[in-house]
Amino acid sequence: MSVIKPSLAKGTRDFSPVEMVKRNFIYDTIKTVFKKYGYAEIQTPSFENLSTLTGKYGDEGDKLIFKILNSGEYIDQKSSDLINKINSAFLENNVKLGTIDSDIDKVSTVIPSGTEDLNIFKSLSDAEKAKDKYKQLLNELTPKISEKALRYDLTVPFARYVVMHQHEITLPFKRFQVQPVWRADRPQKGRYREFYQCDVDVVGSKSLLNEAEFILIYNEALSKLGLKDFSVKINNRKILSGIAEIIGKPDLIIDMTVAIDKLDKIGLDGVSKELLERGFTEADLEKLRPVILLEGTNEEKLSSLKEVLALSETGLKGVAEIEQVFEYVESLIAYSLPLTAKLELDITLARGLNYYTGCIFEVKTNEVAMGSIGGGGRYDDLTGMFGLKDLTGVGVSFGADRIYDVLEELNLFPASAEVGTKVLISNFDSEAEKYALPILQQFRTAGISAELYPSSAKLKKQMAYADAKKIPYVILIGGDEMESGALTLKDMQSGEQKKLSALAILDLLK
Amino acid sequence: MSVIKPSLAKGTRDFSPVEMVKRNFIYDTIKTVFKKYGYAEIQTPSFENLSTLTGKYGDEGDKLIFKILNSGEYIDQKSSDLINKINSAFLENNVKLGTIDSDIDKVSTVIPSGTEDLNIFKSLSDAEKAKDKYKQLLNELTPKISEKALRYDLTVPFARYVVMHQHEITLPFKRFQVQPVWRADRPQKGRYREFYQCDVDVVGSKSLLNEAEFILIYNEALSKLGLKDFSVKINNRKILSGIAEIIGKPDLIIDMTVAIDKLDKIGLDGVSKELLERGFTEADLEKLRPVILLEGTNEEKLSSLKEVLALSETGLKGVAEIEQVFEYVESLIAYSLPLTAKLELDITLARGLNYYTGCIFEVKTNEVAMGSIGGGGRYDDLTGMFGLKDLTGVGVSFGADRIYDVLEELNLFPASAEVGTKVLISNFDSEAEKYALPILQQFRTAGISAELYPSSAKLKKQMAYADAKKIPYVILIGGDEMESGALTLKDMQSGEQKKLSALAILDLLK
Repeated sequence: MSVIKPSLAKGTRDFSPVEMVKRNFIYDTIKTVFKKYGYAEIQTPSFENLSTLTGKYGDEGDKLIFKILNSGEYIDQKSSDLINKINSAFLENNVKLGTIDSDIDKVSTVIPSGTEDLNIFKSLSDAEKAKDKYKQLLNELTPKISEKALRYDLTVPFARYVVMHQHEITLPFKRFQVQPVWRADRPQKGRYREFYQCDVDVVGSKSLLNEAEFILIYNEALSKLGLKDFSVKINNRKILSGIAEIIGKPDLIIDMTVAIDKLDKIGLDGVSKELLERGFTEADLEKLRPVILLEGTNEEKLSSLKEVLALSETGLKGVAEIEQVFEYVESLIAYSLPLTAKLELDITLARGLNYYTGCIFEVKTNEVAMGSIGGGGRYDDLTGMFGLKDLTGVGVSFGADRIYDVLEELNLFPASAEVGTKVLISNFDSEAEKYALPILQQFRTAGISAELYPSSAKLKKQMAYADAKKIPYVILIGGDEMESGALTLKDMQSGEQKKLSALAILDLLK
Repeated sequence: MSVIKPSLAKGTRDFSPVEMVKRNFIYDTIKTVFKKYGYAEIQTPSFENLSTLTGKYGDEGDKLIFKILNSGEYIDQKSSDLINKINSAFLENNVKLGTIDSDIDKVSTVIPSGTEDLNIFKSLSDAEKAKDKYKQLLNELTPKISEKALRYDLTVPFARYVVMHQHEITLPFKRFQVQPVWRADRPQKGRYREFYQCDVDVVGSKSLLNEAEFILIYNEALSKLGLKDFSVKINNRKILSGIAEIIGKPDLIIDMTVAIDKLDKIGLDGVSKELLERGFTEADLEKLRPVILLEGTNEEKLSSLKEVLALSETGLKGVAEIEQVFEYVESLIAYSLPLTAKLELDITLARGLNYYTGCIFEVKTNEVAMGSIGGGGRYDDLTGMFGLKDLTGVGVSFGADRIYDVLEELNLFPASAEVGTKVLISNFDSEAEKYALPILQQFRTAGISAELYPSSAKLKKQMAYADAKKIPYVILIGGDEMESGALTLKDMQSGEQKKLSALAILDLLK
């Protein structure tokens, strides 16, 4: 076995004990809130059949799916046909034994290694043609040597789950799922090839109470994580459709939403320019501008929208939905945590995913410059891709990695979220060790995380160990302590030392 | 998008809400014990560089590693060379344009599809030769089109972690890790291609206190999971070495341990036969038999071993280690949970992994027929494969999937481990819904998982929903209830109904 200098696969991360405790603090907080609202956890496998995933994320998404090589016998069963095709490509391109011309360097990539002397290639042009053909054939190879792929998100596996288990589950089905997903993106700061998604969805219920509860879930979870200033933005696809309708360009709704979604980034002038490029006229812009720039309270915005959309049934339906959601939030919040979240109707909110059909959400923190830390919406046909029609659903997700960065930057992780072991008993010699064993175990039996340093190393080393693990207390047991039964308890933060009996220490630490 | 009948990838599982609650009960119980003993959680990525994993699990293991296809540009960069080799295989095997003989069916797998009319193959024999060559070349293809692979266990990634983070971590480093691993095994009952491992290890400490604590960890975790009769078997590689030494066959230690490890399955006669086949003589067997059949209490076994191994320094060291472990357990257990585990010195225990150098463990339940539900041992050179020498470690793991099956069979999952939502408020009409909203939220604010049925469906349907989700209480709110403020609380298990105020219900459910 040769020795390899170890490294991480590109775009992946190890999580240290300290990071894990912080990550668990986030997941546990979010999951506790999900459960309080009646959501139950499910998990789906890390890999799915390739056919379950492909075609669901657009061409760009499909390219980012990590595919798993068939194991074992894939060579015999699947590939020979393809290899033969590759060979036939040689024939089709008239690549035969012949004389290679002077450009031999340029075609080296397609020259069979070890067969250079055979001078297989007649000319550069043929070789290039052959190369193109290989590429095409190798694209065909992939599905033959790979039939499985890593989960790309939690939504498509959830849709598969609902369809496969439709006879076991009772609607409405309220589920949450916190699992990693994998994407073959180019890694960069804050973007990884493996990251967790935290999704919460309900399918089979049209009630807008669900939408309202998601707002409360965001409010409660993010407040409990320590955020003090964040916005939950809400919009409704039907309002966007209504606007496109009123302008007389219902077919251009996608173009319209893509453009106005950029208001934050490119300003009104930029949006106007893009709208003109995308087929809108100056007259359309005249009508659109006041809608895009809609200001005031949510009530004011809604009342303006009702005027603007007076002639669009769809648009008014969207307004009514938002009003109903606000009403539910109002009724619920009286007996909840205060509504820390700024709930804000934002007409420019579009979100990329075209399957949304009703309310859409996006969550941002106002304390740190950071993209959205959550979002979601209602979709009317999630499971249609697997043959189960007309099942409405609504769901949101939390961007746990970004939330982690926000909490880190704002120094919001509670100190308690960093403590693992609560007390270390030092180890002077075998006699002190023997004395310490029952004390050690008494602490554990009382539910206190405790360690005995496992050898009689120098005290400095033992203290450094406690420091590195952020253990808040160390008990020192020497000859005096054993004689008197009064142990020395050192508070590692203050440096303070007291003499206490083992039982008194236990009471203090409990 | 064509509609696909969804299915799971072979050997993988979905976990429903009920299964997840039970699985989390197992993980949470085990993790809580790990933490109490000073172990901290880490996580490593789901995939590693292929070079990190290959060569660590033997040839058989290597075949079971799931490899991930390089994403994006793998075709251009990596494969052309190989394709060329495949082509050259055609040439080397004299597969040229020619006439195929009568055995065309048998060679169809190597006939280029679409080029059958070209009659590429001169003879069956050449085609078979070509086919063998392809196989070999395609085995070479894998490393060119795949550079990453899914985690096969948690041990090798942990070794990589320790080496990569050696300057950040303080020794002894006590970590636990609970994550899925993937193996391309043929799926069968109880064997899956994705399953969780729960590993706990300490590196950088020679103290046998660690071994003793693992026994207590098994004892506490399995007792808390409800097991009442289970054995922790212990042995020591040095004792096995000592025995081989005494017989005068130290080189045959592997053969010896492999054979006597099978005592349970094939009996003494079977073991004797296998030992003879593996190079031992009748005279050796004479000496081995009393050791293999060693009976009595642990003390009796140890005292017999001391006699047998009197001339083997290594063997006596192994005995002394076991004695020290027992002594530590003795000192610790006085203030612990009672030692439910039967702690049993078992000389026939060998465990497959050759990297163990000291104590080895295996855990079995005696209540259900089931393979081992845990095991582990001490290894003296785990990180050597990544260039960090002489770092000793010891660790054990829990077989969570098997423990799940055991608890299920013995009906040991606590009822509380099945409850998600605690109370459902029924929904008769919009007036009752409005009345219910603040009550709903009061419950949640008090930490009680509560749901309001999201539409005024038929009561029967709402009750069926509560039943399906195993919600223990339903609150009925009709006209009478709204008028009097006395709500009807139905206990779903007993069927009993009482009239109580919202606050009284809240007190009752808290």
